[in-house]
Amino acid sequence: MSPPAAVDIEVKGVTDTSAMVVPDPLTVNGVPAWREKMVKMPTGVAPSCSSDMWKSPACYNKPKAKRLDQLLSTEAKARKASTLKAAASYMKIPGLISLGGGLPSSEYFPIEHLEVKVPTAPGFSPEETQKSGTVLHGGKHDIKEGKSLYDLEISLNYGQATGSPQLLRYITEHTELIHNPPYSDWQCTLTAGSTYAWDTALRLFTERGDYIMMEDYTFASAAETAFPLGIKALAIPMDLEGLVPEAWDEILSNWDVKARGARKPHLLYTIPTGQNPTGATQSAERRRAIYKVAQKHDVYIVEDEPYYFLQMQPYKGEGAAAPPPPATHDDFIKSLVPSYLSMDVDGRVCRMESFSKVISPGSRVGWIVASEQIIERFVRNFEVSAQHPSGISQLVLYKLLDEHWGHTGYLDWLINLRMSYTARRDAMLHSCEKHLPRDIVQWVAPAAGMFHWMDIDFSQHPGVAAGKTPEQIEGEIFDAAIGQNVLLSRGSWFKADKSLPIEKVSFRATYASASFDQIDEAIARFAACLRDQFNL
Amino acid sequence: MSPPAAVDIEVKGVTDTSAMVVPDPLTVNGVPAWREKMVKMPTGVAPSCSSDMWKSPACYNKPKAKRLDQLLSTEAKARKASTLKAAASYMKIPGLISLGGGLPSSEYFPIEHLEVKVPTAPGFSPEETQKSGTVLHGGKHDIKEGKSLYDLEISLNYGQATGSPQLLRYITEHTELIHNPPYSDWQCTLTAGSTYAWDTALRLFTERGDYIMMEDYTFASAAETAFPLGIKALAIPMDLEGLVPEAWDEILSNWDVKARGARKPHLLYTIPTGQNPTGATQSAERRRAIYKVAQKHDVYIVEDEPYYFLQMQPYKGEGAAAPPPPATHDDFIKSLVPSYLSMDVDGRVCRMESFSKVISPGSRVGWIVASEQIIERFVRNFEVSAQHPSGISQLVLYKLLDEHWGHTGYLDWLINLRMSYTARRDAMLHSCEKHLPRDIVQWVAPAAGMFHWMDIDFSQHPGVAAGKTPEQIEGEIFDAAIGQNVLLSRGSWFKADKSLPIEKVSFRATYASASFDQIDEAIARFAACLRDQFNL
Repeated sequence: MSPPAAVDIEVKGVTDTSAMVVPDPLTVNGVPAWREKMVKMPTGVAPSCSSDMWKSPACYNKPKAKRLDQLLSTEAKARKASTLKAAASYMKIPGLISLGGGLPSSEYFPIEHLEVKVPTAPGFSPEETQKSGTVLHGGKHDIKEGKSLYDLEISLNYGQATGSPQLLRYITEHTELIHNPPYSDWQCTLTAGSTYAWDTALRLFTERGDYIMMEDYTFASAAETAFPLGIKALAIPMDLEGLVPEAWDEILSNWDVKARGARKPHLLYTIPTGQNPTGATQSAERRRAIYKVAQKHDVYIVEDEPYYFLQMQPYKGEGAAAPPPPATHDDFIKSLVPSYLSMDVDGRVCRMESFSKVISPGSRVGWIVASEQIIERFVRNFEVSAQHPSGISQLVLYKLLDEHWGHTGYLDWLINLRMSYTARRDAMLHSCEKHLPRDIVQWVAPAAGMFHWMDIDFSQHPGVAAGKTPEQIEGEIFDAAIGQNVLLSRGSWFKADKSLPIEKVSFRATYASASFDQIDEAIARFAACLRDQFNL
Repeated sequence: MSPPAAVDIEVKGVTDTSAMVVPDPLTVNGVPAWREKMVKMPTGVAPSCSSDMWKSPACYNKPKAKRLDQLLSTEAKARKASTLKAAASYMKIPGLISLGGGLPSSEYFPIEHLEVKVPTAPGFSPEETQKSGTVLHGGKHDIKEGKSLYDLEISLNYGQATGSPQLLRYITEHTELIHNPPYSDWQCTLTAGSTYAWDTALRLFTERGDYIMMEDYTFASAAETAFPLGIKALAIPMDLEGLVPEAWDEILSNWDVKARGARKPHLLYTIPTGQNPTGATQSAERRRAIYKVAQKHDVYIVEDEPYYFLQMQPYKGEGAAAPPPPATHDDFIKSLVPSYLSMDVDGRVCRMESFSKVISPGSRVGWIVASEQIIERFVRNFEVSAQHPSGISQLVLYKLLDEHWGHTGYLDWLINLRMSYTARRDAMLHSCEKHLPRDIVQWVAPAAGMFHWMDIDFSQHPGVAAGKTPEQIEGEIFDAAIGQNVLLSRGSWFKADKSLPIEKVSFRATYASASFDQIDEAIARFAACLRDQFNL
């Protein structure tokens, strides 16, 4: 339990930028050339690193993020760098022998090499990978032997809370390519998953007794993380595009500290793309309107974006085939709805990213992007808690994403994933169109994510006449579906504010994991159960 | 960011124990036969599991742990199981099609197999591993293909916060073999490392304004984790065996709430074996005395034990060779100092375990052992935070520890590590005896761990006459050592209570990582610097 000395995130990439002209933004194909110009990859044990080492000059000539001291919690303000941090700086002295640290010798790490077999682009299917996949090899001393910039000697030892520089470089470049934040001092840090990042965000931005703001229907666990910290959820009204900015503005503009028993809230949790559970995706215009409300009321936005790359092809209706995939990487990137991060002129957004839906949830590797001030506070917390994600996971991801696929191969993978999810969603929608009673069930085609949301017109349910509540009716339909051997998630499970009455009957169905046949069969069973319930 | 439904840790292994006679304790060689009798390994995605599935009948006929509600924090008491938990129970219905969860399909996990090359016992050195190591193979669908109980399809997906049943079984058996806790309802859960477990323990057992109790000199980061939570450290006096129970009892017996401005503390953090930084190891007798004080004052003990298996052979003095290794696994286990867990009749101990010093810190896999009540509270917190350690790490550890080494091979590895650390410690002590001015520097041979602690008789330092404080003198010696290109850790860095004056001059040197030649050279340089500083 001896973490290494804390990271110094002041490390800079290009030291003299004065002579630079205003440069072009980083492009996918420009990455290799740009890498040549940057500082050499630090390949020692647990080296300090920061995104500044790899951001292109296009990032420099922008204003800095605002400082947001007024939004930080007592805990966040009190957290200091490790006492042992100072000692790390001595390690740079040439010829120094260190008896100072508490790191074990790699002699006692019992893994000599690690190999993974992975897809070779564009053969991404499991079948193709078995036949034509590539075996990636990581040796214990690949760095010393000049074979790689990352190896088991380093990844099996302690690292910094930011994550290894090897993977952080990739993440930083990816962030610039996709989001290109409009302020200069943005940073990334790896996280031990988004759930962990959100728990940490609550510690950094809230005090016991506060409200946080969430979509009316939201990821249940995100709300449940907060409650035992003495935090209440303020549910913001939603429409088909998710959170409604006007309604939100009205709540905040009329905040009554006395009536609410709490100060005006300043933390928004939102899932802007393929929202869980409703599947809603906020348009660019909607996001800009929400961002304006956040500026007006000095709100910090946490955008939880696991489904961002599960944006799908437009739905063309019953029986129609999906349009062909984006022709180029550029077309693909342009097809993505702009993130809050990409419009964050103030530095009031923390983007929570995850490999869970695009590579593997079991890796327990995610990352966040925010201003230097905020990332530094996250890192201070991480280094005395989960420290950093697994070095074994980091090595596997580095080998796959950086050494093997590169940015181009990863974008190919993401386009492939887009088409796979498009096919899955379409299969579910076609089944719904085929089987479900349309005068009872309403839905819109989800543009992103894993979830299909169905609103049930409970007013037609015979139970209404008998005085049953929507919650009771939802429960009866759920039980009836279980009776037909199909499991859906009840909409009421996702209410952010559990103290509010349930006024609708809704169900969430995921098309992410069952086979096409199973999806069709499950929807057919659900249809039968609805007909039965509604006496159709 | 969709964790699976919460674990149900009520799952039991043997359901009917009424007819059992009082059984013998589990033995290393008895594990395979016992495994045959237990419930089948759950091999689905994110299955519920608990140590009860694998504890031998020797565990059942013991009293239960005390309930410790009075020691839990407001946060811990408020944390509930996930709303989505109920849905998980439906998954057991045969023929059910689930559209309920949020787990991605393994079709989109881009790893078809993973291999690691590891030592074949007893050839544990890196050289032997390169020559005669074993390559362990993990395929994506090994479970379905009947090749293994664990595979990539499962480990790359979400898991439960307890960790996978595959690795938890091994950990549970290991715990019973080594510690055999004296109450019946003990449980294990994996953790994302001990640093994370300690941060969580603070959330479970303390409120803002509380004191926690620590050794006077302690792992600096453990104290620094606590301070921003509004927690103060109460430093307990130490002697050569570490924490002094009489002094501790006196402090608690005379606790004055008003004068201290805080309620009587109830959480002890201790590193009983190879303490960081002093290298002290509490004897069995000392532990029993400390446990009694904990019982008397209703204190909960967190024993942080990363160095437990770095207990070394007795030190035989200058130039003498170490005694031969323990002849049998039984001799080895008996040679280990008893843990607090092994004497915990009340269930007031949480043992924090780590693979960091015995396998790899980069795995970020640890585990804890405590009563069912306390483990359940940890798990509730984990599942809305870091969830579970990396599945990739878990698969590698399972392949190595369970499928390859088994308990016998792992004990061989630990004995090998014991002899390696004995040789490292002996090298450092021999260098100290050869080079250091003995009338200025005092030490005792550490019995465990990575750290050699040296007390400096600063009263002989010329700076004393000039009115310099011990802290200033320590700083001057440290700077002089840096000037000689040797880095040691200053004793004052490890003071638990930073508000107390520094009354001693001490240094911590680790023998864990430098080569034998470097250790000798570093100590020779330190000796020269001390002679210079003390005008010898």
